[in-house]
Amino acid sequence: MMFIHTSDWHLGRQFHNVSLLADQAAVLAQLVDFVRQNPVDAVIVAGDVYDRSVPPTAAIDLLNRVVTQICEELHTPMIFISGNHDGAQRLGFGAAQMKNAGLHIISNYTDMLKPVIIESQTAGPVAFYGMPYSDPEQVRYHFETTVDDFDQAHQVLVQKIDEIKDPCTRRVLISHCFVDGAMESDSERPLSIGGSDRVSHAHFTHFDYVALGHLHQPQKKGEEFIRYSGSLMKYSFSEQHQKKGFTVVTLDDTGFVSATHEPLNAPHDLRIIEGELEAIVEQGRTDPHHQDYLLIRLTDTHAILNPMEKLREVYPNVLHLEKPGMLVGVEQDMAKARLARGEHDMFCDFYREVQGSALTDAQGDAIKQIIRQLNASHSEQ
Amino acid sequence: MMFIHTSDWHLGRQFHNVSLLADQAAVLAQLVDFVRQNPVDAVIVAGDVYDRSVPPTAAIDLLNRVVTQICEELHTPMIFISGNHDGAQRLGFGAAQMKNAGLHIISNYTDMLKPVIIESQTAGPVAFYGMPYSDPEQVRYHFETTVDDFDQAHQVLVQKIDEIKDPCTRRVLISHCFVDGAMESDSERPLSIGGSDRVSHAHFTHFDYVALGHLHQPQKKGEEFIRYSGSLMKYSFSEQHQKKGFTVVTLDDTGFVSATHEPLNAPHDLRIIEGELEAIVEQGRTDPHHQDYLLIRLTDTHAILNPMEKLREVYPNVLHLEKPGMLVGVEQDMAKARLARGEHDMFCDFYREVQGSALTDAQGDAIKQIIRQLNASHSEQ
Repeated sequence: MMFIHTSDWHLGRQFHNVSLLADQAAVLAQLVDFVRQNPVDAVIVAGDVYDRSVPPTAAIDLLNRVVTQICEELHTPMIFISGNHDGAQRLGFGAAQMKNAGLHIISNYTDMLKPVIIESQTAGPVAFYGMPYSDPEQVRYHFETTVDDFDQAHQVLVQKIDEIKDPCTRRVLISHCFVDGAMESDSERPLSIGGSDRVSHAHFTHFDYVALGHLHQPQKKGEEFIRYSGSLMKYSFSEQHQKKGFTVVTLDDTGFVSATHEPLNAPHDLRIIEGELEAIVEQGRTDPHHQDYLLIRLTDTHAILNPMEKLREVYPNVLHLEKPGMLVGVEQDMAKARLARGEHDMFCDFYREVQGSALTDAQGDAIKQIIRQLNASHSEQ
Repeated sequence: MMFIHTSDWHLGRQFHNVSLLADQAAVLAQLVDFVRQNPVDAVIVAGDVYDRSVPPTAAIDLLNRVVTQICEELHTPMIFISGNHDGAQRLGFGAAQMKNAGLHIISNYTDMLKPVIIESQTAGPVAFYGMPYSDPEQVRYHFETTVDDFDQAHQVLVQKIDEIKDPCTRRVLISHCFVDGAMESDSERPLSIGGSDRVSHAHFTHFDYVALGHLHQPQKKGEEFIRYSGSLMKYSFSEQHQKKGFTVVTLDDTGFVSATHEPLNAPHDLRIIEGELEAIVEQGRTDPHHQDYLLIRLTDTHAILNPMEKLREVYPNVLHLEKPGMLVGVEQDMAKARLARGEHDMFCDFYREVQGSALTDAQGDAIKQIIRQLNASHSEQ
């Protein structure tokens, strides 16, 4: 059996006020082509198919076209789960009516506990369990159980799935969560503050494959068969070096065989260019990829009139401009202003805010001494 | 063949800041019961299933439950068309995947030209053509034709449908438009200003039945078989005397046989009560329907302290209060103010606005004379 694992399409996303829909349509066309040219048994989308719970009409249209191509024309079943960006109930309308056409949208716990069985010659029938995006509150409420964090919540959900007696020996789990230790990037919306969103991969090791969504960087977690496919495209400049695409998974009747990354190429790449204005403009004149979406970081230290205008003559899609070079002086001024307000007073306020009580005299003296030392070493630089 | 014709559900509607969802769920349960207890071959919803293009999640949930009961549990096909309140593309997501489960959502012209064929013992196969809500602009753009108004647009759409060669001799049309001469009420959103939204019933006379939506009053138009089912519930106080429900249509192999109105009873009726405060409060104490949604029109001519508070003690769901009695004096004052500004000048302005030119001297004299006569007759009263 061969299936595609993909996630985090974020259809309808705006990036620095630019619609990415045309690029999303282009990379999805590459994915559809792969399905057309290869013996794909299923396409799994592990959450965040839309960028927000009420997606724009054009994003709905694009998904409708892709789904019709894959399910109707290519007769390949698709399984979606809802992610934290999706509106679960909105996405799930008509799910019961779509099933027989091979379109499975799993956005509630009733459907989570009814596996989608897909037949294959090499692995026999395989049970796909879709876990809709779940925070601890939802699990607590629905299963009337006490769970404190995402880890416990996902443990409970896996237990519920394990109670199902299905006729398949091979089982695939689909989940949208933050598996412990995985790498983050800027475009993933945090699920919670301070680490309580992490889920241990240990809960998942008895499945034959775990198709994860949420993190945008393709990666495995703990085992070869517990993987993030990564997002469809780059959705923040922090993802500039990530290889985007989808994961092609093969199973046989003994379980997991392989997972390989298949690249997708967006018409506009997302890049950061760093350097002095003159050099960047010079390079832009012959850059074959001058249409890319760019963050430009100017290192010039002198004032420049209309840098954006000059850059856009050669790079029309500069989306963001940073001038760290110009800030050298500004930062020094800010540091002076901060000194004027008194570091010691600021630290006393901060300590009171955090601890709920004032510094003792001894603590106050120690802090004063540290600040003096730091200021002295600053002046030497 | 027996089918249900209903329309204008407006799920998710707020009425004077009160959600009508619980009432909508209650009347839909009555409709589902009818399907359960009668040999219904299909349920037709002629547009405006939602109250707005982005309906609230709770409205989507309700529709999902109703659709699952009728299509899945009772195995009765449903056909929806998009109305002017619905978001056609949003409503139409997954339509291709839902068809085989008996859920037909027709929200574009491609699907309009593929009839839904429903088999029956008494009428043979019947072709149902759903016409999504269409303004002239959409028809002009899609069919590259010149149409100026709704009437011409619907004539073109019927011509397109007539070009289809389908194997059925019996044909039903579903449309959401304003058929000429039909009665309006306050809760229908006008399609256009000044009459260009009217569609002649003459375009529809060659179908066996025409299931119309848009107008909230159940009524036939020109022929017994061209009908509005009316809305699911009362959606404005101007509809207080309308009998809400759905239409049960029977066809046989010769065509139209009968259309009967089946009532639906909302938990809260929508009523206007007119009278003096004291009498209304007295009547409310023993009114078995004191939970109804009310507009109360007080005829008292003297000032009353906190009338709403007094009324809500007996009628908790007073949604709107009118005090025409108190306005008698105010209206006289306003009339005097209007006189002071000069009716003749006001009429001259109005005439110039509408006609684009000033009154002639003879016209001006005639108007002055009329105003004098009117003022004289006013003073006599």
